[in-house]
Amino acid sequence: MKTIFNMYTNYNNNMSKKQGLTVKKSNFSEWFTQIIDKADLADIRYGIQGFIVHKSWSIRIIKQIINMFEESLEKEGHEPVLFPLLIPEENLKKEAEHFGFLPEVFWVSQKGANETLNKRLALRPTSESAFYPMYSLWIRSYRDLPLKKYQSVTAYRNESVTRPFIRGHEFIWIESHDVFETHEESLKQIKNDINIMKNIMIEKLGIPILSFNRPEWDKFLGAESTFAIDVLMPDKKVLQVGATHDLTQKFSKTFDIKYLDKNGNENYVWQTCFGPGIWRIFAALISIHGDDKGLKLPFDIAPIQVVIIPIISKDNNSKIIKKCELLKNTIGKKFRVYIDDTKKTPGEKYNKWELYGVPFRIEIGIKELKSNFVTLSKRYNKTKIKIKYNSLENKIEKLSLEMNKILLNDANKFLKNNLRNAKNKNDFFKYVENGGIIKATFCGKENCAREIQNYTKGLKIRGTFYGKNEKVLGKCIYCNKSAKKNVYMAKQY
Amino acid sequence: MKTIFNMYTNYNNNMSKKQGLTVKKSNFSEWFTQIIDKADLADIRYGIQGFIVHKSWSIRIIKQIINMFEESLEKEGHEPVLFPLLIPEENLKKEAEHFGFLPEVFWVSQKGANETLNKRLALRPTSESAFYPMYSLWIRSYRDLPLKKYQSVTAYRNESVTRPFIRGHEFIWIESHDVFETHEESLKQIKNDINIMKNIMIEKLGIPILSFNRPEWDKFLGAESTFAIDVLMPDKKVLQVGATHDLTQKFSKTFDIKYLDKNGNENYVWQTCFGPGIWRIFAALISIHGDDKGLKLPFDIAPIQVVIIPIISKDNNSKIIKKCELLKNTIGKKFRVYIDDTKKTPGEKYNKWELYGVPFRIEIGIKELKSNFVTLSKRYNKTKIKIKYNSLENKIEKLSLEMNKILLNDANKFLKNNLRNAKNKNDFFKYVENGGIIKATFCGKENCAREIQNYTKGLKIRGTFYGKNEKVLGKCIYCNKSAKKNVYMAKQY
Repeated sequence: MKTIFNMYTNYNNNMSKKQGLTVKKSNFSEWFTQIIDKADLADIRYGIQGFIVHKSWSIRIIKQIINMFEESLEKEGHEPVLFPLLIPEENLKKEAEHFGFLPEVFWVSQKGANETLNKRLALRPTSESAFYPMYSLWIRSYRDLPLKKYQSVTAYRNESVTRPFIRGHEFIWIESHDVFETHEESLKQIKNDINIMKNIMIEKLGIPILSFNRPEWDKFLGAESTFAIDVLMPDKKVLQVGATHDLTQKFSKTFDIKYLDKNGNENYVWQTCFGPGIWRIFAALISIHGDDKGLKLPFDIAPIQVVIIPIISKDNNSKIIKKCELLKNTIGKKFRVYIDDTKKTPGEKYNKWELYGVPFRIEIGIKELKSNFVTLSKRYNKTKIKIKYNSLENKIEKLSLEMNKILLNDANKFLKNNLRNAKNKNDFFKYVENGGIIKATFCGKENCAREIQNYTKGLKIRGTFYGKNEKVLGKCIYCNKSAKKNVYMAKQY
Repeated sequence: MKTIFNMYTNYNNNMSKKQGLTVKKSNFSEWFTQIIDKADLADIRYGIQGFIVHKSWSIRIIKQIINMFEESLEKEGHEPVLFPLLIPEENLKKEAEHFGFLPEVFWVSQKGANETLNKRLALRPTSESAFYPMYSLWIRSYRDLPLKKYQSVTAYRNESVTRPFIRGHEFIWIESHDVFETHEESLKQIKNDINIMKNIMIEKLGIPILSFNRPEWDKFLGAESTFAIDVLMPDKKVLQVGATHDLTQKFSKTFDIKYLDKNGNENYVWQTCFGPGIWRIFAALISIHGDDKGLKLPFDIAPIQVVIIPIISKDNNSKIIKKCELLKNTIGKKFRVYIDDTKKTPGEKYNKWELYGVPFRIEIGIKELKSNFVTLSKRYNKTKIKIKYNSLENKIEKLSLEMNKILLNDANKFLKNNLRNAKNKNDFFKYVENGGIIKATFCGKENCAREIQNYTKGLKIRGTFYGKNEKVLGKCIYCNKSAKKNVYMAKQY
């Protein structure tokens, strides 16, 4: 059903008072702030720091992204659940004792007019300490394993600095919590998680990613290893858009999650958890594909994939609208199509839908009434193409693939241009000036990492490349001590 | 894509330790508690009163129900949004000053280790006071109207007594908040909201509903009128599953939501809000259709619509599995199909999927290998039917309609048998004994309503029938004073 888009008249109305972007993308920080306001993505005037109102255009896109991840997770054997928002302090403390988390927490500590709760309840910052006590009840024997559950929810963290879709006191993510009999299965799951990220980010959203094995001091608290996915943003800083953690038996020992194996022996389970950062994926999408005109939405997640604009002329008005509707009925079975028949001028409409990132636009005027052709304007490379009316569906399908490739190519180009292999200290310091990601040999010491960060005003070790076992004989690019690994470094969000 | 159901092996594993229902539905209260546990709907052992863990089978069903409402709302011009969970105390107080709400609220009042917030923040009990201050910023002119937004979220209320899916400290619902230029448009919207409820409840879920204009003393605080939808539960009490409210200009005056009309005059907007109670709709679904064996899920929302059970025999094992997969590939394009090839006995599998309410079951054994026919077992009336392999898809489609009709008919029958028209006082007191819903003439006075409630131990005035303007000349069934209206009374959840 693609016919649910009759309501966009409101957008038009709401937009009538606004204009296009007045700042170039090269001024990234301001551009990002402006596009969030002008493309109906978020309203930051709600009145509580770090809490935004998600507006309709963003929620539509975000729902599409969530659906993609849910489908992938379910194909890989995960089942949906919904755990309570609130986590008893004692559960969280159990986790905190071992791994820490409390400073970031918002607490429910009162109810009603003025009653104080006996025990404070945390808004979920992440849900290990909600899930795992229940897992301890649910899991009895090897027959209950593997157990793979996920939830798509908002989570809450008291961060000092916030930015819409990048870092919020309230943010949207998916968390999946998986339990296995063996560590091998955990490691396989982690590979699987990273593949889910790869497939969606690259194939569907056209965003190149880098997967890292994070260094010891940058792991999720309580994880044996953290594998994280970074993207390169236009300001050449990296943004972590997801992570999967090898928890080994650390949490199962804390929360007492045991199972009887086939021989009747009791063992602690092995666990992983995976968090696709839906908010940040959306931020990456806005930032990496967008241009001076506005958003460029990948075809699969665009709430409107084709916008039809009637070019009204007094005498043929009703014929033109009819033709638009005919067209919508034809391609609307396959694509999400919307006719913008509001009162604005064609130019205003073009600008609006460019700002909103709709992939394709078709204008229908007098000329098109008599012709078997229509003209399709492509948002992604600003070209137009004449297409025979009856081959429109096929052509749009093909162009959508072309579009995804072009978006990905552009993003890949940017990434390649800003990922540099520093072979010596001179290289290294030159590249630090350039920004972007630097690959270099590194001693592996936290101390040295900290010195690098201080000296470069923010350059951080993102980790070794996941899946590549590059052995290196060389010296640390910074401290000159012996180094056995290549790492990637970048400034981060 | 119907191929996302490979993960049900886990259910089987988890189920292996459980058994079917051990209590009849005639013992409704215990039956409800048991089915929630045994059909993988909720775990109530989370440790905070009124907060349940939504398990996978229930979340799958609930998601389907949410999708139905979202599609209907969007067809009627609503757009999705997501407002923050937290509402500043001052906003809520503005509402409370006029209408009240604070006693039911959970408060975030601390963050971090032990820091107290300057201003308490409420977990949304409902979101008028989150939406409307923003509406006051968003709405400037008649061109911004109508404005129709909805969100599907969890909400939080500190109720004294809780029951899974019926009354929770945390519950799932949809809230839509609509704004118009005129009261006429509001009233039209309310009709529209009730039609959405009717269509989904009756056509899709097979649940008959009654729509009432609630009496003055039972309105949503701040509403001019409340129109609410009740269903009759098996224990003959009614459950409100949704409501839509005519807010007139009360909230727009409180939150200062004004617009400039075509003549340049400033006016307050007219508002409605509509809340389909997703949790309670699910509770109704469980309760009204379920039987001694378990759930009976209406076809459209069943996470598994057809379960295929291989009847393994040593020599033909792989052939049988292959046939099952062939069958799944055939009908799986259209329906949600799952092959239960776990290690349990066929009998255990039949019982399980009956408990879970899967509409259709097909067994594939040696007999079916050589035959062009398969046997389809229907959950809804416990009959079997032989169907030609190649007409299976059509047949299932037809049977799904038959099924919905039968579920609705059964529910209608129960409702009719328990909705009585009391013509005199004798009738009335006899019917009070019987339980169910009583239609009778009523004086319209709150005092009398309270006396009725006290005397009958709980009978409440549900209101006049929405849309029917029955004029009555008679006397109040209870106090004998003059009465102009028929009302409906029932005990309620």
